[in-house]
Amino acid sequence: MTVGFANLPLAPNLYRSADTHASDRRGFRHWNSMSEMNAAGAGHQNASLGDEIVARINELAAISETPEHLARIFLTKEHRAAADLILSWMREAGLRAHLDAIGNVCGRYEGERPGLPCLMLGSHYDTVRDAGKWDGPLGLITAISCVADLHKRGRRLPFAIEVIGFADEEGVRFASTLLGSRAVAGTFVESALGVRDEAGISMREALTKFGLDPDHIGAAARARSELLAYIELHIEQGPVLEAQNLPIGVVTAIAGATRLAASLNGMAGHAGTVPMALRRDALAGAAECIVAIEEFCKTDEGGLVGTVGYIHAMPGATNVIPGQVSFTIDIRAPTDGHRKLAVADIVRQIEAIARRRKLSLQADVTHENRTVPCAPWLRSQVAEAIAGEGFRVFELPSGAGHDGMAMIDIADVGMVFVRCRGGISHHPDEHVEVADADAGARVLLRLIENFRPRGAAQQ
Amino acid sequence: MTVGFANLPLAPNLYRSADTHASDRRGFRHWNSMSEMNAAGAGHQNASLGDEIVARINELAAISETPEHLARIFLTKEHRAAADLILSWMREAGLRAHLDAIGNVCGRYEGERPGLPCLMLGSHYDTVRDAGKWDGPLGLITAISCVADLHKRGRRLPFAIEVIGFADEEGVRFASTLLGSRAVAGTFVESALGVRDEAGISMREALTKFGLDPDHIGAAARARSELLAYIELHIEQGPVLEAQNLPIGVVTAIAGATRLAASLNGMAGHAGTVPMALRRDALAGAAECIVAIEEFCKTDEGGLVGTVGYIHAMPGATNVIPGQVSFTIDIRAPTDGHRKLAVADIVRQIEAIARRRKLSLQADVTHENRTVPCAPWLRSQVAEAIAGEGFRVFELPSGAGHDGMAMIDIADVGMVFVRCRGGISHHPDEHVEVADADAGARVLLRLIENFRPRGAAQQ
Repeated sequence: MTVGFANLPLAPNLYRSADTHASDRRGFRHWNSMSEMNAAGAGHQNASLGDEIVARINELAAISETPEHLARIFLTKEHRAAADLILSWMREAGLRAHLDAIGNVCGRYEGERPGLPCLMLGSHYDTVRDAGKWDGPLGLITAISCVADLHKRGRRLPFAIEVIGFADEEGVRFASTLLGSRAVAGTFVESALGVRDEAGISMREALTKFGLDPDHIGAAARARSELLAYIELHIEQGPVLEAQNLPIGVVTAIAGATRLAASLNGMAGHAGTVPMALRRDALAGAAECIVAIEEFCKTDEGGLVGTVGYIHAMPGATNVIPGQVSFTIDIRAPTDGHRKLAVADIVRQIEAIARRRKLSLQADVTHENRTVPCAPWLRSQVAEAIAGEGFRVFELPSGAGHDGMAMIDIADVGMVFVRCRGGISHHPDEHVEVADADAGARVLLRLIENFRPRGAAQQ
Repeated sequence: MTVGFANLPLAPNLYRSADTHASDRRGFRHWNSMSEMNAAGAGHQNASLGDEIVARINELAAISETPEHLARIFLTKEHRAAADLILSWMREAGLRAHLDAIGNVCGRYEGERPGLPCLMLGSHYDTVRDAGKWDGPLGLITAISCVADLHKRGRRLPFAIEVIGFADEEGVRFASTLLGSRAVAGTFVESALGVRDEAGISMREALTKFGLDPDHIGAAARARSELLAYIELHIEQGPVLEAQNLPIGVVTAIAGATRLAASLNGMAGHAGTVPMALRRDALAGAAECIVAIEEFCKTDEGGLVGTVGYIHAMPGATNVIPGQVSFTIDIRAPTDGHRKLAVADIVRQIEAIARRRKLSLQADVTHENRTVPCAPWLRSQVAEAIAGEGFRVFELPSGAGHDGMAMIDIADVGMVFVRCRGGISHHPDEHVEVADADAGARVLLRLIENFRPRGAAQQ
């Protein structure tokens, strides 16, 4: 299949963006030559998609469990109200739209002829509690606006476009993430239906009450042959683009994560009576581990991040040397191999610290997510679209999880990041400038219009 | 006044024990020449005071709020029952005994003639919750046993002996320590009567219910002229004597303490999306502070100890970089000057860490106790008694607080430490060997029999 390809002023070596070895040492890639590029003009009619998107972001954010704190949770009446609103936007944009078996909103915009495989665009519309309004909805609303723009111009492409709003990515209600995208990817686990929320309501009961049939979630699953790719636009949720002074970035991979629960056991004692040399202070040991983990990740050259987010020292009194300390370790890297080596190195280091301090160490992996690489051919097309809009092309990994982690099972995945203020997310202060929302929409629209399926000739 | 002085085989330079500058760099003093000394024999009749003491320790420990967890709290029925038992032991030992205005048990053994100033011996008989049975009672019971031994032999000394069991040293019920000894020292603060326990009962109400008159606590106060010295025997509550393989030690000072509440503020963020170089991780900052505090105290040469016993990281989730961390710092040293310099140095260090990491620091002193030095002339006499019993003389500071901290206001203070297993205290595993209890009693008895008031001729 040959797809129209905008005449972008790109050097041929741009396509080597797929080669992550050419990236800088933090896993970011700079293409300075792009900074002087002119916007090539995507040919769309609507010069301020950003305004429409921000208006819809605000309209959707008004649908919340409480007005003060944004929370839109899976299978609630807010879920229903939000789905109805999104369905109406989809239909207005020329998409044929419906709610699927798990509660995802699904819209289809046919290509040059009916029944063509689709480029699937999407993100989620559930939220955490006391959420920001951009995490998820920005990608979904932007995709709808892009299709609306095509529709307004009567533009049909040599492939269909589907837009999907996943009903549950955050996993707030049933402590299990990616429920919407797993259903679409056909990897939804039936046993999840028995999980109960804090009120004791099972997922099965909640689906039924919502009007869905829990025994037919399989009907939401899509076949690999139906999809050309899955592309998601999302806020960065980190401060890298802001630090780079760029509105848009190419995502290289959704970083895998390993979480460990560690505990150190020493000997509690009176803060006054035990000389320093005779102590087996579990908190001092944990502190040395935390400093070592930070140092290890800081000096890493492959985008590794390590976080100790939780710590508990027992007995926890001012005048008692802590005898036991529990803490968590969260390690992420853009490749699984790198992450696994890092985890092994870090465990060896904290084992050595424990041994030297005569503390006993217990460290167990509690959670592990594989890395989901963004397909090189999609990264190239995202880069082209960014460059085509006149922005410097900059690649970065996603440290946060996204629906692509499930969608990888049925499609190649691409991601576009939009800058958010201060890197703040999962917080009411989460913010995206209108100009950046507009830039995201222009990039996505250019990406769609110039999209070439994998293996298609490039000119 | 001339006091009989046992002919101990001591080198004259023993008396330089008062010179703390001759101590080793941790504030401990070794007198190796003493290790070859023979027990000179104290001349007492009872060769196994230890057995009697341990039996009484167990008998007193049976008086507890609950049988499983030892707790004997101020102005409870257990306080009353324990006081009655101790009064009976005192009377049996030949002491004239009564309960004073705050609930201390007080016994007096007259000297060669009635009304002489007294050598006061004592410790406390209240406990923490889930306590060990030796912390406090050992000193009180040992003192009674020593007087009983004198009494059995009809021995009267050129001074009276008073034994006091303080009713509240731990401060569990009204969150204010040293209530018993402060009343005796005349430094009880009237406003404490309004303080309420967890059940809402004020100290005034509790005293009244116990049968005491809260308006006459002043009657418990003693005059400086009535006391020749206050000497307390107590378990070490630390591991130093055990590490030295010694049953008994001379206390140089009750170390002063400064407690600080510190908090570091950085920026919370997603554990996956914020690169290491862009983080302001409050927990990593606190960890560096903890390591620095430990290192500073470890390399100090003056017996300094520093402890971070409590830490709380917010928001405290595995996948969130901590934006705020609170922790406590407890600093103790055998002299106030040394402690104050150390606190200033440590605060400077953590300020520098915070500044370098772009964290804001708040550090406030929440508590400060002066150092109570043990009087050099009493330290010498304790050392003589230890040497006289054939033990190597070893000096160490007390990191824990004791009633001497209040008694210093009306008398010079001396302290004798008895080894406890593993340094464990404030815990059911607190343990003293019978032989060590016996050694403590023999030392205390020798100390009493050879006691010379301050300024008395030494031979």
